[in-house]
Amino acid sequence: MKRSDRLVGLTNFFVNNPQKLVQLSYFTERYNASKSSISEDLDIINEMLKYEGIGSLERFPGAAGGAKYIPNFTNENSIQFIQSLCEKLEDPSRILPGGYLYMSDLLGDPSIVRQIGKVFVSAFFKKEIDAVVTVETKGIPLAYAVADYLNVPVVVIRRNMRVTEGSSVSINYVSGRSQRIQTMVLPKRNLQEGMNVCIIDDFMKAGGTVTGMISLLEEFKATVVGIGVFAEAEDNNNERMIEQYTSLIKVSNLQNKDINVKYGSILQK
Amino acid sequence: MKRSDRLVGLTNFFVNNPQKLVQLSYFTERYNASKSSISEDLDIINEMLKYEGIGSLERFPGAAGGAKYIPNFTNENSIQFIQSLCEKLEDPSRILPGGYLYMSDLLGDPSIVRQIGKVFVSAFFKKEIDAVVTVETKGIPLAYAVADYLNVPVVVIRRNMRVTEGSSVSINYVSGRSQRIQTMVLPKRNLQEGMNVCIIDDFMKAGGTVTGMISLLEEFKATVVGIGVFAEAEDNNNERMIEQYTSLIKVSNLQNKDINVKYGSILQK
Repeated sequence: MKRSDRLVGLTNFFVNNPQKLVQLSYFTERYNASKSSISEDLDIINEMLKYEGIGSLERFPGAAGGAKYIPNFTNENSIQFIQSLCEKLEDPSRILPGGYLYMSDLLGDPSIVRQIGKVFVSAFFKKEIDAVVTVETKGIPLAYAVADYLNVPVVVIRRNMRVTEGSSVSINYVSGRSQRIQTMVLPKRNLQEGMNVCIIDDFMKAGGTVTGMISLLEEFKATVVGIGVFAEAEDNNNERMIEQYTSLIKVSNLQNKDINVKYGSILQK
Repeated sequence: MKRSDRLVGLTNFFVNNPQKLVQLSYFTERYNASKSSISEDLDIINEMLKYEGIGSLERFPGAAGGAKYIPNFTNENSIQFIQSLCEKLEDPSRILPGGYLYMSDLLGDPSIVRQIGKVFVSAFFKKEIDAVVTVETKGIPLAYAVADYLNVPVVVIRRNMRVTEGSSVSINYVSGRSQRIQTMVLPKRNLQEGMNVCIIDDFMKAGGTVTGMISLLEEFKATVVGIGVFAEAEDNNNERMIEQYTSLIKVSNLQNKDINVKYGSILQK
């Protein structure tokens, strides 16, 4: 097989298997090529991934060694993407009765969801993450987009006890804004004890939900190494219950129908 | 830029943007190359995508023309993948009290979810699909995996009316197995009228949920062109309410703890 063909096959393999260590022998057999040919291919791919600003191909020497695609997306692309989201979200027809912002169309677009995943992955770059945790429902696709690039599992916290999940740990917590008592449930089997996790959710107001998630995760002895929310609402009535988090966009003045959408904490660092 | 570099960049672009028509001028500018060079690159990529059994690069001539990656995955890979799932699911420790099967770990693995998406995409190949519809919660990642390869939006039916979604259409339906009355809600804004949709869900018993989804979709004048469920339960007590569907695996004898997992309808065609 020619180099040009191998480069297509190898590139497809790596971008579809981020953070997965693969031995070179897998490729020498698959493409019937020498180790030195494959090694040169990988050099070309590594240089081009860097040029495109989408990460790099890391090499690990030795018997158990191989190559691994480490996704990392340039800040420049993130800024452009977030800017375009802000413009879309500032449309006044998105304001719903009750002071909510309609964004289901954006979160229903798989390519936007994938982009959001890329931004979070780059924000959490170099952090050791064993699992991505979210709470149903709207954060789920975002959590999978992040987990996909990190090559780690997704754990979904439920709002109600499910009979189909086996024994579970549940907590009650006070929702920040409404001050109502709510429940969160996580089946014991779904998360091993002592993991490093990042929390992903679609929307944060006072931060009650995230605070609830952190409490529940403590029951699993998990360490929260990152918190990412797609949108945060600027809320002057309540103090934020969470200090350290990464948001892509910040929405304010929703109640007054004079909507204002700007960059979130991710670009204020 | 050299051909070898362009091939890496182009392959990455196409596998990350399935079903998206791109004009050749986009690439001639991006990589500072002639139209004939890019055209030769695309021929190489097309041949290699076919060789790898992951689809093809379609070319559209004319002023508004360009190239588009059409994902289509070989049956061979699907069979191998489904076989490995069956083996994993036959583990008796997966049987939960009440005769349920634990599969959250598999559906929490982004690479397995992506594979399931590939199988459905190939099963629905050549069907005109405008949107993928699912119902919360566990079908959501599968729906996004399918929609990602089809380049269409995901519409999530909710179990409860949400104040954050604006005016909605809701229906009541009778759950097949429990014979309980349940509710489904879809905000009006989330789905345009008259779309061709495919339904994706994680589990089907008698088919009550899917029947409910079809009723709700009728209110949006949608045409259901495909139904895909990850797992179906062989249920001798009830007749199946749905005739036409694609399942990856079929689970039986769960109640007796003598679990049996085999290929679903997808391999019986």
